[in-house]
Amino acid sequence: MRVIGLDPGLRHTGWGVIEINGNRLSFIASGRINPPTNITMAERLKYLYDELSITMKNFTPDEAAVEEVFQNKNPKSTVKLGHSRGIAVLVPALFNLPVAEYSAKSVKQSVVGTGSATKDQVMMMVNRLLPGSAPKSDDAADALAVAICHSHRASVERIWAKNNNNVINRNNSGGNIN
Amino acid sequence: MRVIGLDPGLRHTGWGVIEINGNRLSFIASGRINPPTNITMAERLKYLYDELSITMKNFTPDEAAVEEVFQNKNPKSTVKLGHSRGIAVLVPALFNLPVAEYSAKSVKQSVVGTGSATKDQVMMMVNRLLPGSAPKSDDAADALAVAICHSHRASVERIWAKNNNNVINRNNSGGNIN
Repeated sequence: MRVIGLDPGLRHTGWGVIEINGNRLSFIASGRINPPTNITMAERLKYLYDELSITMKNFTPDEAAVEEVFQNKNPKSTVKLGHSRGIAVLVPALFNLPVAEYSAKSVKQSVVGTGSATKDQVMMMVNRLLPGSAPKSDDAADALAVAICHSHRASVERIWAKNNNNVINRNNSGGNIN
Repeated sequence: MRVIGLDPGLRHTGWGVIEINGNRLSFIASGRINPPTNITMAERLKYLYDELSITMKNFTPDEAAVEEVFQNKNPKSTVKLGHSRGIAVLVPALFNLPVAEYSAKSVKQSVVGTGSATKDQVMMMVNRLLPGSAPKSDDAADALAVAICHSHRASVERIWAKNNNNVINRNNSGGNIN
């Protein structure tokens, strides 16, 4: 299964694709989308939409995970950040992927072990968990971290689902308990 | 020329299409998009994207005007509002329309004459300026008001452009002034 992680920002949107085989994670690709700054908001959003769509076509992920954003200093910037994040959530949905959302704290907790990890710690752990990834920007590293976080959560959910199925099967094979 | 006005919100997005012939405005259509509330954010954004795309195809506007949003009580709601507004700005851009943005204050100023106008005053003036429009919701009325605001600004800009062209033509016919 392939997961695309996305870290949307005001200026740049990081993306990272990983592959999950059982408990093994491997790096597929990562990068950063940089809409030009000398164009209108509408053109910037179209640029982000186009580049994300190309990335989806190139790497054909099965699931998406998007980092939650939270900013309260300047409400105008918060709205603009919401614009970029809206596109980052929309595009995988248009490709019919399930889209999970994780807070920055959950992502750090999942990758480094503490919700207060620094950017350097995140990048180091991404490099360790995904040999060969060597992300060139914080945004790409964060996006890969979101994908790793999703793979951890998803594997927990699959174990739960499997156990639940076992319970159901056992009940079924054990006959009607009513 | 046809203008689509858009008033994006957390729950509903109003839209209104008007036609401009010289100084005459006429009502074409208006409505409100209501994504279901029992689906994920990704599904809600896809719903809004699909419905807006259908509206663009049905009414073939030439220009778009989107109301600016501003909310600072709850940053999480501000981000979500930004998501909806991002889609409202993106879709006309994907149809290659120029997208203008106006503050709520400018819209009220343009339609009612005062930036502090009430919703009832906006609806009454929309009804008066666009006979037959009778918008069924505040969101649709606000969207038509945004389109009216754009038509006023656009006509001022056309007059300016025309005057500037006249100046340029006069300079040209008057020979090289260097």
